[in-house]
Amino acid sequence: MQLKIGIIGLGRIGRIHYNHIRQQLPEAEIVMVSDVNKNELPSDVQQGEVDELIGHPAIDAVVICSPTDTHAQYVEQCARAGKHVFCEKPLDLSLARIRETLRVVHRHNIQLMLGFNRRFDANFMKLKALVDAGKIGDVQLVKITSRDPAPPSVDYLMRSGGLFLDMTIHDFDMARYVMGKEVKEVYATASVLTGGAVAEAGDIDTAVVTLKFEDDSIAVIDNSRKAVYGYDQRVEVFGSKGMANVENNKPDSHVYYHEDGVESALPLHFFMERYTGSYLTEMRAFIQAVQAKQRVPVGGTDGLKAAMIAVAAQRSFSENVPVRVEAVAS
Amino acid sequence: MQLKIGIIGLGRIGRIHYNHIRQQLPEAEIVMVSDVNKNELPSDVQQGEVDELIGHPAIDAVVICSPTDTHAQYVEQCARAGKHVFCEKPLDLSLARIRETLRVVHRHNIQLMLGFNRRFDANFMKLKALVDAGKIGDVQLVKITSRDPAPPSVDYLMRSGGLFLDMTIHDFDMARYVMGKEVKEVYATASVLTGGAVAEAGDIDTAVVTLKFEDDSIAVIDNSRKAVYGYDQRVEVFGSKGMANVENNKPDSHVYYHEDGVESALPLHFFMERYTGSYLTEMRAFIQAVQAKQRVPVGGTDGLKAAMIAVAAQRSFSENVPVRVEAVAS
Amino acid sequence: MQLKIGIIGLGRIGRIHYNHIRQQLPEAEIVMVSDVNKNELPSDVQQGEVDELIGHPAIDAVVICSPTDTHAQYVEQCARAGKHVFCEKPLDLSLARIRETLRVVHRHNIQLMLGFNRRFDANFMKLKALVDAGKIGDVQLVKITSRDPAPPSVDYLMRSGGLFLDMTIHDFDMARYVMGKEVKEVYATASVLTGGAVAEAGDIDTAVVTLKFEDDSIAVIDNSRKAVYGYDQRVEVFGSKGMANVENNKPDSHVYYHEDGVESALPLHFFMERYTGSYLTEMRAFIQAVQAKQRVPVGGTDGLKAAMIAVAAQRSFSENVPVRVEAVAS
Amino acid sequence: MQLKIGIIGLGRIGRIHYNHIRQQLPEAEIVMVSDVNKNELPSDVQQGEVDELIGHPAIDAVVICSPTDTHAQYVEQCARAGKHVFCEKPLDLSLARIRETLRVVHRHNIQLMLGFNRRFDANFMKLKALVDAGKIGDVQLVKITSRDPAPPSVDYLMRSGGLFLDMTIHDFDMARYVMGKEVKEVYATASVLTGGAVAEAGDIDTAVVTLKFEDDSIAVIDNSRKAVYGYDQRVEVFGSKGMANVENNKPDSHVYYHEDGVESALPLHFFMERYTGSYLTEMRAFIQAVQAKQRVPVGGTDGLKAAMIAVAAQRSFSENVPVRVEAVAS
Repeated sequence: MQLKIGIIGLGRIGRIHYNHIRQQLPEAEIVMVSDVNKNELPSDVQQGEVDELIGHPAIDAVVICSPTDTHAQYVEQCARAGKHVFCEKPLDLSLARIRETLRVVHRHNIQLMLGFNRRFDANFMKLKALVDAGKIGDVQLVKITSRDPAPPSVDYLMRSGGLFLDMTIHDFDMARYVMGKEVKEVYATASVLTGGAVAEAGDIDTAVVTLKFEDDSIAVIDNSRKAVYGYDQRVEVFGSKGMANVENNKPDSHVYYHEDGVESALPLHFFMERYTGSYLTEMRAFIQAVQAKQRVPVGGTDGLKAAMIAVAAQRSFSENVPVRVEAVAS
Repeated sequence: MQLKIGIIGLGRIGRIHYNHIRQQLPEAEIVMVSDVNKNELPSDVQQGEVDELIGHPAIDAVVICSPTDTHAQYVEQCARAGKHVFCEKPLDLSLARIRETLRVVHRHNIQLMLGFNRRFDANFMKLKALVDAGKIGDVQLVKITSRDPAPPSVDYLMRSGGLFLDMTIHDFDMARYVMGKEVKEVYATASVLTGGAVAEAGDIDTAVVTLKFEDDSIAVIDNSRKAVYGYDQRVEVFGSKGMANVENNKPDSHVYYHEDGVESALPLHFFMERYTGSYLTEMRAFIQAVQAKQRVPVGGTDGLKAAMIAVAAQRSFSENVPVRVEAVAS
Repeated sequence: MQLKIGIIGLGRIGRIHYNHIRQQLPEAEIVMVSDVNKNELPSDVQQGEVDELIGHPAIDAVVICSPTDTHAQYVEQCARAGKHVFCEKPLDLSLARIRETLRVVHRHNIQLMLGFNRRFDANFMKLKALVDAGKIGDVQLVKITSRDPAPPSVDYLMRSGGLFLDMTIHDFDMARYVMGKEVKEVYATASVLTGGAVAEAGDIDTAVVTLKFEDDSIAVIDNSRKAVYGYDQRVEVFGSKGMANVENNKPDSHVYYHEDGVESALPLHFFMERYTGSYLTEMRAFIQAVQAKQRVPVGGTDGLKAAMIAVAAQRSFSENVPVRVEAVAS
Repeated sequence: MQLKIGIIGLGRIGRIHYNHIRQQLPEAEIVMVSDVNKNELPSDVQQGEVDELIGHPAIDAVVICSPTDTHAQYVEQCARAGKHVFCEKPLDLSLARIRETLRVVHRHNIQLMLGFNRRFDANFMKLKALVDAGKIGDVQLVKITSRDPAPPSVDYLMRSGGLFLDMTIHDFDMARYVMGKEVKEVYATASVLTGGAVAEAGDIDTAVVTLKFEDDSIAVIDNSRKAVYGYDQRVEVFGSKGMANVENNKPDSHVYYHEDGVESALPLHFFMERYTGSYLTEMRAFIQAVQAKQRVPVGGTDGLKAAMIAVAAQRSFSENVPVRVEAVAS
């Protein structure tokens, strides 16, 4: 039986899921989509209002790709309607609101999967597999580099919740994922070094965040909003038995040697190119978990935990002290 | 307007084209497929006999993925029916038959594209682009490594036409493609070193073939039917202004350091994994060329030329002398 | 004219300098050496007490490789005797003592070079050259990985001054070197994760240190006393125009592909193998600067600055707050 | 006891050996050197005529680095004087003369080592070790790339014996070394593609040589006299259990990412930089073998065998047929 899906929001990321489901995931079918802008879509896909979609009797699961400030509300609405949900991160910029939503989700016993797509990237899955197979031994240090090719617009930045909640949140989740442990304390230092949109929006663009885990192991994340050479996404895991790291993906493997030097390809430019495969694997995992009535691989609690670390990082940065995650939990 | 396609042969490679067209090439539509075995296919795809398919009035182009010994006949039949053709390589094991078929193709003025898919691999396209942009200068030497993870069955080998016509033919085409010049002379040395199926079939499994081009530049190809570490597909281009080469593709970029050494991923295991992208790009190129009434990027003559080099290599190997390609042309 | 040199201390590092000067630096000559243990040395090298060596009229410069707690005293003695000095790091574990020594050095107007040998490693010199050539633009982030293959003995650790003064001090100097700017604030987090000698000595073995520079750019250092795969020494520089990094050096470049995976060589195991070249280049730079009466490339102030950062890191770690470097300056 | 050495010829390569022995090989001492040009040398090294040197009673071994056309004569003279010999390759350009010299060497029972220094390069030694350890299984294919950054002068080329005897001879030796087997047949194709000095000297500059070994395994060598990006020295070994290859050595490992691409270092420019270490290891091996009265690792027969392959390659190229090595042996 195909899983019947409705998609809310057909922006950049919504389109990716839409195409993946239609083209490469025959185990699911898109019954309805909803977007504030009407889209040119194949004739066999119905378009409707959000309420209509969530209430649609034929729909089993809803994929939410609308703006962040609608996430919590739509998730709750879906929960009440008994629909399983795949929701892009973050659930909300407010921890209180996230907790409230998770309570609704829990009460109605639906599955809620958060869109931390990087967990489904082949490189990072391999690192996780090495950790799980004991190849790294006790993990003592995780290093994450995450840099965007260019900052978003001032508008976007103003509503983003800031660097830690918008961008580093992926890295907080990655650190928890690879480590398989919980963070107890956060120290964040950050600067405004690229000027432009970030400065105008009053945000930061360059950050180093140190995470201390419950067993005293450490993770360190470095972020930049502007890496002129493109999207830089690397992770390294170090432990008592060894170390493993992954490099950026490139469009081809050529190396060109000439009189003045050696040249090779730049990394894939941004998340659309780099993470294409991970979006597909992620959606397949969601569909299969729902169909098999198994726990989705990234749950609402993972979203809450990452957001809590982000809020702790924010407070750490503004007060310039290390902040315990439990301090933002209350 | 979508290009209406019929597919003959739904084996391993036919399935790849089938899926690509249905899922990722909305510019085309599959009207009918034909295979000696009836297939489980979506209900909107008709299945029929070959004659029915080639004669189908709604079909613009035919994709031929049936066994090699049917290629020439089906291509001619398509030509007479005014259908454009995409045909897997080789057109035939006999040069005379290939020439005959090309005459029919020419007479009926259809487009014929040969399935030299490696031309559409991102790595090799990049090398070609560097050559075309003059970055290599005058190309003086091309080196091609092409090794399979394991030999095919004795049955397959017996009908394959031998290593040069079955396997090296891809490399002969690659040499012509990258060089952009014609081969004048061939020397092939080869051995039976892996035993097993190859020895039983009376074929060879290890070969080095040297090609001399019309301007005295050189290409050298090394083949093995059995590389225990997987599919090995590398090309290097050397010239007056520089050198460029490409490495094998890998499933991930991890490097794992432990007490006893450093480990990383094996190359993608075989052509299904390695060349997935090239099959899609190739089919898109065929469809677009036919729709735009432009010359297909790999024509019948390319098939003939590669086959002529293969036949020259065969003769060179059996007589242990260099053989001029024009000597097999007559 | 050859520079006449005396060497105090012929332990592991003293021997390296001894051999380099005798064998590969004909611009200098070793007149006398002094060590608590008498050594088997060529007959043309005199051995004597420290006082005799420092007072030797034919000696122009003294290379100090004795234990850390003798450095300050010997440097001052050399200064009073008008001898130029090359001294292994650190000058002393006490900032007050370092300052006092530097005053003596200054008063007697001798050259004092500190043994931050990594500045003379080919990889790091290349990074510095890229920064100096403006290729990185405004440097925004420096990342330094520095891990030892195994912790030293408990004895050594007890007298070492702790991780930050003994090991990370090299990385603090590297950060200043590559950045070309001064550090204003330090945050250090650290753990005891390897047990064994480090735990016994009451030291730490795993640390992440964040440095904030005067212009808000950031450096981050990660250390481990025990990387089972060997010596791990990498640096990355990121800025407005690009990024550059360097990998570990390896004994050979082989890659071995077999049925079960791909293997390559481990990094050079420890500093004796990895930094051989840097010790030679460093000593040549010292000799040439003294001979040319030019400023040595790494002066006493560099030693003081690195030590100040180390002391700030220590305080940051024990108080778990960021510490301003000027706070330890007074 | 130090081995007492005389050096004939203090050109580029003679100087390397001179410096290595004086500076880094305390197990030997240079007693006398001889060169047509008088050299500025340290006062403790005597200079004399060739006859005087070979006849010097204190000298145990002679290192011959004079022009090729003097090698055979000097080696024979040394043999008659009972001196062991290290001689740069080739022994002579004539096979008959080489055989004659080897007879003299054999009669007087001295050790003769040929300067095939590449056998002592860390990369190639690693490949050989993998082969010897059975990691490659039965070796089926060896690939050698050997390209110079620029052709030598017309003068040099005219007296060099041609590409195969001057340049490829190193690769013939490498193929025998790595394979551990003897070559039975050679096919060489070659061209003049770089113009300039090579064309003027009537030599060739671009060659691909295929070697068939006694057990039907194959080696293929590609040469160019002009690789604009520098010295290109790579070897690959392929067999029943796996494959191993080595990359060029580089001065540093930096990778620089900027807006327009990724850059890294060119290979070490020529043999002086690339093979420094191999020259030292080679000379140490010679000295130790002579001192221990053990067989030198590269003997006169190795020189003869490589030269025979070179002569076979020459004949193959000029007649454009494969040539059996035994055919040039008579």
